[in-house]
Amino acid sequence: MASQQIVLTDVESATFSNAFRLSSRSDGSTGPNLAGSESWSISKSTLRGGLSDGVDVVEIENGELSISVLPTRGMGIWKAGFRGVPIGWQSPVRQPVNPAFVNLKERNGLGWLNGFNELMCRCGLSFHGPPGMDGDSEVTLHGRIANLPAHKVVAEVCDQGDGTLSVTGTVDECSLFGPALRLESTVSTVAGSNSLTVRDRITNLGGQPTEFEILYHTNFGRPFMEDGSTLVVPVGEIAPRDSHSASCLENWDRYPAPQAGIQEEAFFFDLQAGSDGQTEVLLKNAVGNLAVSMAWQKNELPCFTLWKNPQAEADGYVTGLEPGTSLPNLKSFERDQGRLITLGPGESYECGFTLSVFDSKSAVAEASDRVASRATADAVVHAAPISKFSP
Amino acid sequence: MASQQIVLTDVESATFSNAFRLSSRSDGSTGPNLAGSESWSISKSTLRGGLSDGVDVVEIENGELSISVLPTRGMGIWKAGFRGVPIGWQSPVRQPVNPAFVNLKERNGLGWLNGFNELMCRCGLSFHGPPGMDGDSEVTLHGRIANLPAHKVVAEVCDQGDGTLSVTGTVDECSLFGPALRLESTVSTVAGSNSLTVRDRITNLGGQPTEFEILYHTNFGRPFMEDGSTLVVPVGEIAPRDSHSASCLENWDRYPAPQAGIQEEAFFFDLQAGSDGQTEVLLKNAVGNLAVSMAWQKNELPCFTLWKNPQAEADGYVTGLEPGTSLPNLKSFERDQGRLITLGPGESYECGFTLSVFDSKSAVAEASDRVASRATADAVVHAAPISKFSP
Amino acid sequence: MASQQIVLTDVESATFSNAFRLSSRSDGSTGPNLAGSESWSISKSTLRGGLSDGVDVVEIENGELSISVLPTRGMGIWKAGFRGVPIGWQSPVRQPVNPAFVNLKERNGLGWLNGFNELMCRCGLSFHGPPGMDGDSEVTLHGRIANLPAHKVVAEVCDQGDGTLSVTGTVDECSLFGPALRLESTVSTVAGSNSLTVRDRITNLGGQPTEFEILYHTNFGRPFMEDGSTLVVPVGEIAPRDSHSASCLENWDRYPAPQAGIQEEAFFFDLQAGSDGQTEVLLKNAVGNLAVSMAWQKNELPCFTLWKNPQAEADGYVTGLEPGTSLPNLKSFERDQGRLITLGPGESYECGFTLSVFDSKSAVAEASDRVASRATADAVVHAAPISKFSP
Repeated sequence: MASQQIVLTDVESATFSNAFRLSSRSDGSTGPNLAGSESWSISKSTLRGGLSDGVDVVEIENGELSISVLPTRGMGIWKAGFRGVPIGWQSPVRQPVNPAFVNLKERNGLGWLNGFNELMCRCGLSFHGPPGMDGDSEVTLHGRIANLPAHKVVAEVCDQGDGTLSVTGTVDECSLFGPALRLESTVSTVAGSNSLTVRDRITNLGGQPTEFEILYHTNFGRPFMEDGSTLVVPVGEIAPRDSHSASCLENWDRYPAPQAGIQEEAFFFDLQAGSDGQTEVLLKNAVGNLAVSMAWQKNELPCFTLWKNPQAEADGYVTGLEPGTSLPNLKSFERDQGRLITLGPGESYECGFTLSVFDSKSAVAEASDRVASRATADAVVHAAPISKFSP
Repeated sequence: MASQQIVLTDVESATFSNAFRLSSRSDGSTGPNLAGSESWSISKSTLRGGLSDGVDVVEIENGELSISVLPTRGMGIWKAGFRGVPIGWQSPVRQPVNPAFVNLKERNGLGWLNGFNELMCRCGLSFHGPPGMDGDSEVTLHGRIANLPAHKVVAEVCDQGDGTLSVTGTVDECSLFGPALRLESTVSTVAGSNSLTVRDRITNLGGQPTEFEILYHTNFGRPFMEDGSTLVVPVGEIAPRDSHSASCLENWDRYPAPQAGIQEEAFFFDLQAGSDGQTEVLLKNAVGNLAVSMAWQKNELPCFTLWKNPQAEADGYVTGLEPGTSLPNLKSFERDQGRLITLGPGESYECGFTLSVFDSKSAVAEASDRVASRATADAVVHAAPISKFSP
Repeated sequence: MASQQIVLTDVESATFSNAFRLSSRSDGSTGPNLAGSESWSISKSTLRGGLSDGVDVVEIENGELSISVLPTRGMGIWKAGFRGVPIGWQSPVRQPVNPAFVNLKERNGLGWLNGFNELMCRCGLSFHGPPGMDGDSEVTLHGRIANLPAHKVVAEVCDQGDGTLSVTGTVDECSLFGPALRLESTVSTVAGSNSLTVRDRITNLGGQPTEFEILYHTNFGRPFMEDGSTLVVPVGEIAPRDSHSASCLENWDRYPAPQAGIQEEAFFFDLQAGSDGQTEVLLKNAVGNLAVSMAWQKNELPCFTLWKNPQAEADGYVTGLEPGTSLPNLKSFERDQGRLITLGPGESYECGFTLSVFDSKSAVAEASDRVASRATADAVVHAAPISKFSP
């Protein structure tokens, strides 16, 4: 086995690669040949102009799956694609936004929305959920991590097995008299495969215990979400977030066509996991020949939020499948419910998920059955918001 | 006729021209020869350092008139010059400010002022006017558009007639659960002429109807404004904005010498238009051999605000001639007065103005007469603020 | 005598040096040979990536002392080093932060802390101290100057005497209807010496009188601060800032080992000056073979604040020696105490300090004696906060 690492960015050592591309030797580049795919590559560029000015993009192509990672936006995943099928959504914000242009305090603390358009962005680390107060401290929508740039970015290719391509970024959410939380995130994919894995380590760099929470805001529009799309979820317990969502409970696992002006819905879940500790959710299109699944260890990310926003296409027709350590409520509520994680000095927490794509009826059916099989007990369905999930 | 287009910036296609200059073939460049002027050029550069770091500047020279456009600042016009006469003003903010350094929420919502120094910057698009609340929504001074960078910038030269030089920028004021307004702005000038034209199209990219308003904050200092400068305005109706302005009403169309600490004045107008629908205002210096005029279609921009700020030179000796779809009041007030424009999904609104410069007594006199001739009816002069203009 | 000046940045003339290094001719460069040191250099680079993206760093090496100046952060001094001994501290914020990423209004007005990690950063110019209100005006922690980039930066080497190396930056804190304060700061060092001098001129560019205040937040951690480190201060009068600090008064001039979660302390001073008008403070390590001193003209900077923050290393084990024109209280309080400076139109104020390093027992002892000798009268010690220092 050989592994090749390339430091793309490292502020400490004044390293910065303006443009970079690595592919296999058979492609005339200096990377290894991989068993899984001849046509892999890892490349990096920096966007210029508009709100994207200065945004670094790392693109991983595994031969079938392409992944665009945004170190400048907290190692979020801008978009992906599988055999030409786009994975992500169309936000009214069309291009990646440099956090320098995002004022989290604008719009009554909803400024985060001005930069929101990724397939996956993290909410956290010190807090997430709606804007408001946590005791004397102001909190803004979904926290700071998605608007903090990575100060170190390393690409890696490893030729073991089919070969693995990855990029690892380090993002600090640190301040004097504030949290000192470090995110080390690796996005990886096996050459030629249909999946990507996000693996994160969150470390308390500070000298005192600190609370943290994370939620993976993973968002899908067309072609996965469409009129007639359905969800497969191994529900342990489900409750609507609020009264409007309660009124939509009956159809929680189905999607309508876009409808201009429709109000968003959210549902909170306790999921069932298999004997391997794994839980999984799946979104499939109406005809059932296209699906995306997300799988994770239930003990790492015990909470799951489903966000449904079937607005007009132009307004962001999108659904969020959002595993997290907590639910997207005010930090104070999550604290009261015991869902915050306290890290001692130097302590770390690891979590992440695997996203897979299926593009045939048989593959979708097989994956659906696997996800459904995680549910071995009856689901508890709450018709109204419950006090442990909703403030 | 031949037209040559050059894409200077396009985030979507990862196009960005670091430095660019086009002039005529007779100048050794690749542009066409133009009948109107041999010495035209269009060039682009990016400022580095200070608060200007990363600000793109597109300069158009038509042989007599030079125009500096700021794609990074919402396609504002930094400054212009005509045969060596500077057009613009001296703000305490000396150089163009990258919006990344502007916090609109600072100074109780007056942070916009920290980047304000252009000959022309737009107020809008979702709101403008003073900071405050619009229902539950925070609004900050004069809105966001002047602090949003264009994600697409295209220069164009066309050899029809005397030849036309232009730059077109596209700026999005878009967000999830927010407005989705696109500005497409073209600044153009005929080779060898004494005028520039701003032509804007504002489009609702969203899926629901949305309100918008725009005001062209067009600002002049020396040598157009000086002790004894006067205005020619085809007044239909005039009212002072507030009681202080009311006390200055008598001299509304004359300018004093700079006076340290003097309070600003503002007057609101309904202007008269000619049979061509055009209205026009003109500012001329004391001796009457230098003037600038602004002309526009009254039905496109029905409102006109005059801002007089004859402070010490060092504090910004300046006057604003400000056509708009509305007046610079709180959005809620403008809504109540029926001055907001509602755009349906996909709908557009077009508006703009032409700015011309006159540098001889005869040219100034002729232009003054033309502007004055727009007024065919008697002016209605209100001695105090009136309820349809002032909250 | 010959002096060589190099303009590294000048927005007005569109000058920007991406990378620069000047050293002596004997080093193969184009600078003069200096009597004080053969191995001097001045260099400039721009950091890329993370929150440091776009931060310019000017490094001066005098052969013994190295100084890293940050034009992008208001001409602050990131760090220094003397014969391998680091001068500065370890903030939880590890690298210099581009002000574009700093939102001063975050964290209830404490956003300044998100970019705070320098050996020396200025607080001011229009206001400093805690967040709050000054009449109707919002003020945020420690003002804007540390988060405003210099628009002009000039390096200079002069071969007079031992030779002097310097960098001068110009930073504007200017806005329409706001202050128009200009900082011109020169950081200089004599080749081969153990000291650096900061010399600032603050000018009111506006047309009306304006208040200003400045405080040099100069911060030291290891190895100068450690368990058993002591201060030598020519105390005229000392008072604790608050009741917690009062409870720590007995040990005000000694430092403990890092202690996780310990509360910060602050003490306010009126210092004694020598007949030359100079006052001076010194911080030395436990064994007394390493010390740093700061000296300044008492009439220029009449106030001195001592900040002690002996938290866990990971949280920022640091002390601040902070001469200023005022104390770090709300501007309104400092105004009431007569400690604000009013500058008329065009008026300037000059101030600064010299920082010296001593790395032998004898040198430390000599410097300690000199500092102690500034105190010729008995010190007045207040056991509790006093009304002229604390609100």
